[in-house]
Amino acid sequence: MSRVVITDLALLVTVDDADTILTDRTVTVDDGVITAVEPASSPHDADHGSAERIDGRGKLLMPGLVNLHTHLPMTLLRGLAEDVDLQGFLARVWKAEGAVMDPDTVELGATLGALESLLGGCTTQLDMYFHHEATHRGAVAAGSRHVIGPVFFEGPGPDGLEWSARLAGLRAWPAALDEIGGPAVPVSVMPHATYTCPPEGFAEVVAVLREVIAESGRPGLLTTHVSENEAENAGIRERYDATPTELLHRSGWVERDLPLVLGHGVHLGEGDRALLAEGTVAVGHCPGSNLKLASGALNWTSLRDSGIRLGIGTDGCSSSNDLDMWQAMRQAALLARLTSGRPDVASAHEVLRAATIEGARALGLGAEIGSVEVGKRADLVLLDLRAPHLTPVHDVAALLVFAAGRGDVTDVLVDGEVVVRDRRSTRVDTPALLARAAERGALARAAAEEVS
Amino acid sequence: MSRVVITDLALLVTVDDADTILTDRTVTVDDGVITAVEPASSPHDADHGSAERIDGRGKLLMPGLVNLHTHLPMTLLRGLAEDVDLQGFLARVWKAEGAVMDPDTVELGATLGALESLLGGCTTQLDMYFHHEATHRGAVAAGSRHVIGPVFFEGPGPDGLEWSARLAGLRAWPAALDEIGGPAVPVSVMPHATYTCPPEGFAEVVAVLREVIAESGRPGLLTTHVSENEAENAGIRERYDATPTELLHRSGWVERDLPLVLGHGVHLGEGDRALLAEGTVAVGHCPGSNLKLASGALNWTSLRDSGIRLGIGTDGCSSSNDLDMWQAMRQAALLARLTSGRPDVASAHEVLRAATIEGARALGLGAEIGSVEVGKRADLVLLDLRAPHLTPVHDVAALLVFAAGRGDVTDVLVDGEVVVRDRRSTRVDTPALLARAAERGALARAAAEEVS
Repeated sequence: MSRVVITDLALLVTVDDADTILTDRTVTVDDGVITAVEPASSPHDADHGSAERIDGRGKLLMPGLVNLHTHLPMTLLRGLAEDVDLQGFLARVWKAEGAVMDPDTVELGATLGALESLLGGCTTQLDMYFHHEATHRGAVAAGSRHVIGPVFFEGPGPDGLEWSARLAGLRAWPAALDEIGGPAVPVSVMPHATYTCPPEGFAEVVAVLREVIAESGRPGLLTTHVSENEAENAGIRERYDATPTELLHRSGWVERDLPLVLGHGVHLGEGDRALLAEGTVAVGHCPGSNLKLASGALNWTSLRDSGIRLGIGTDGCSSSNDLDMWQAMRQAALLARLTSGRPDVASAHEVLRAATIEGARALGLGAEIGSVEVGKRADLVLLDLRAPHLTPVHDVAALLVFAAGRGDVTDVLVDGEVVVRDRRSTRVDTPALLARAAERGALARAAAEEVS
Repeated sequence: MSRVVITDLALLVTVDDADTILTDRTVTVDDGVITAVEPASSPHDADHGSAERIDGRGKLLMPGLVNLHTHLPMTLLRGLAEDVDLQGFLARVWKAEGAVMDPDTVELGATLGALESLLGGCTTQLDMYFHHEATHRGAVAAGSRHVIGPVFFEGPGPDGLEWSARLAGLRAWPAALDEIGGPAVPVSVMPHATYTCPPEGFAEVVAVLREVIAESGRPGLLTTHVSENEAENAGIRERYDATPTELLHRSGWVERDLPLVLGHGVHLGEGDRALLAEGTVAVGHCPGSNLKLASGALNWTSLRDSGIRLGIGTDGCSSSNDLDMWQAMRQAALLARLTSGRPDVASAHEVLRAATIEGARALGLGAEIGSVEVGKRADLVLLDLRAPHLTPVHDVAALLVFAAGRGDVTDVLVDGEVVVRDRRSTRVDTPALLARAAERGALARAAAEEVS
């Protein structure tokens, strides 16, 4: 049996249904499961034998952050397409990707992105990238709870695969997930967008996913990009006389029994929101990317009030430049107040929930992760509170959303394993990885410069 | 003679007029002045004798950030007024301030805020708080280049002073600045706002400041809060049938020979902008505070195109919760793209300039600080680039604005003195300060709860 004990925590932010915040607690994790949350002075605490210990004095424990929309391998392309909109970005980046993103490079990029995520307290990523198997291998190597699946494009994408090969990849995905290992995640499928895949493709993909779910016994998940900017909506309107959401709905993507995560969802109209409310649907809100590319401002309250779950994402590093979920939380809170004109919208508690338990629920993992409660898997983050910018503590949730940051994260557990200890990865030879990433990054830059 | 040598820097971001970025450089500082910027392998580098050395390998050097609008002692009130607008915030905070913010507590809060600022790479703050002398003493103790002056309210403010006592404080301010010491700053005066001071008060204050400037030979600076939200504009319209800017203009505040910094300036109309263009005027743009309090969205391009200088600020910690200029830079860039609908507005270079050289120029300090150039005072910041979230480096300015953060700052010089070394203050006993701040913070919280 493996045991981890986190002793004498100054603060424990549970993100349970009552948003309970406790002081002076010790948390015990056995074989990946949270088995006890006790007063720090509990006698139980004294008797942990050979357990791995983390000194929680002066620290805050909270659930790991869930990034609900990203593209980890694009971390290698950080800053390669500045000062352009979505369409300009795609034109610049896709060609560079085709030139350099072979499976080895994708795996390297995924490890780099997962490492950045974990060091910053983000334990789960809903990722989307071609060479999904290499991506998963890279992220799992760093220790992430990493959700991905086959990506679909009409015509060969940057990976050169035909549609039929993508379908074969989907059928083979549960076995590949087993082989790669890593924390439990759903079988996911991710056509890129309605502007890159035909409606009948969406219908076919969900039908095959349902077969795969039935055969494998694993939970499933759907995700795609939807209504990221107005040009996307206009293009789909012109081709199909419909919205992206209407196409998804007609393709059997909006159902109660199969969770769907929409990347971005900035320009979902009232009719779209009503259709989406028929299913189990969440939006992976990426404020940093949406604002940087001038895609627009998601309206937090209109989505929430339509019954659509809201999670937080960073998007990939070539559009938003980093994978900092703390920045994304704060941006989401600030943007919600701007779009609503109200300072009491998107409270710190609500935004913190979006980045943890709501993200977990969006992935169908709400019973396993997203809060610190006995019986849940231990995806946990510790922050050191002993810093000027976290002093004094008047409002813990506000401190987390409006003052804390990735620089405060000291230790991270995923599925009970300590993957970050004292601000360092326990799994990745970081200096060696950074050197390799800089080399491959230089090749990508050369390719992008050739394109432009 | 005191010498500091920063050797073998990987990157040097000068923020000079050409936005020059250099690689492999060594920088020498003598008696507070940058005296050499040379190739790292320069023979000069080998012969520094007893100089203090900073190893720049793997690091980036840039000018210190300039926070163009803040209230450092309010750091003690971080998170005390959540989910309220400006007016609700003022109601809640001012009464708590009156109860607990005596000069000793103000000095403590200023040290805490300056320490947070410096550890995060912000070397200069344009501050505004009552008990300005205690505030200055506290910030200078931490090592800041700290700009402040007497604050004015109609009727006794939280400090209980009469108007005449405030004027006396202004006349005495140059001598007090000399006595306290610290890096050179202008003699500043800061009536709180047109909604808390009468127009004739503004006229009187600037007249006295001009006398003080003439007598002391020091440069001067004016600052106040202007058009932070629409309710403020509406209240001034009702009382005076004018805008805040029109009142300032009539009071002799908009002149070429005396720099004026407007805090916030979110709701400056076209007529206001035309009036302001007659003077030497900058706006201290505080996107975090403006969005959090739902004050509105400053229009970056309309101000810039009107000839108004734009700098970046954080506001105080009771409205925006921290003093993180990296967050503020990124928020400013993102908001400018939203308000303009253009992804090529507020480029990373432009925003970086706003947070450094433009902030310095706004304070009349453009010849002394704000860029890394031989002959300037050494207000300098080092960042460690050897982190996953800063790898690879494709676009240095974008890396700084859209990926770097205060957690990356390792060393900070102000006026040539190393005030932060290896992420620690060289001047402040940080654990002791944090303990005192937590105690005083608890008293403030109790007072705020009594009020509400």
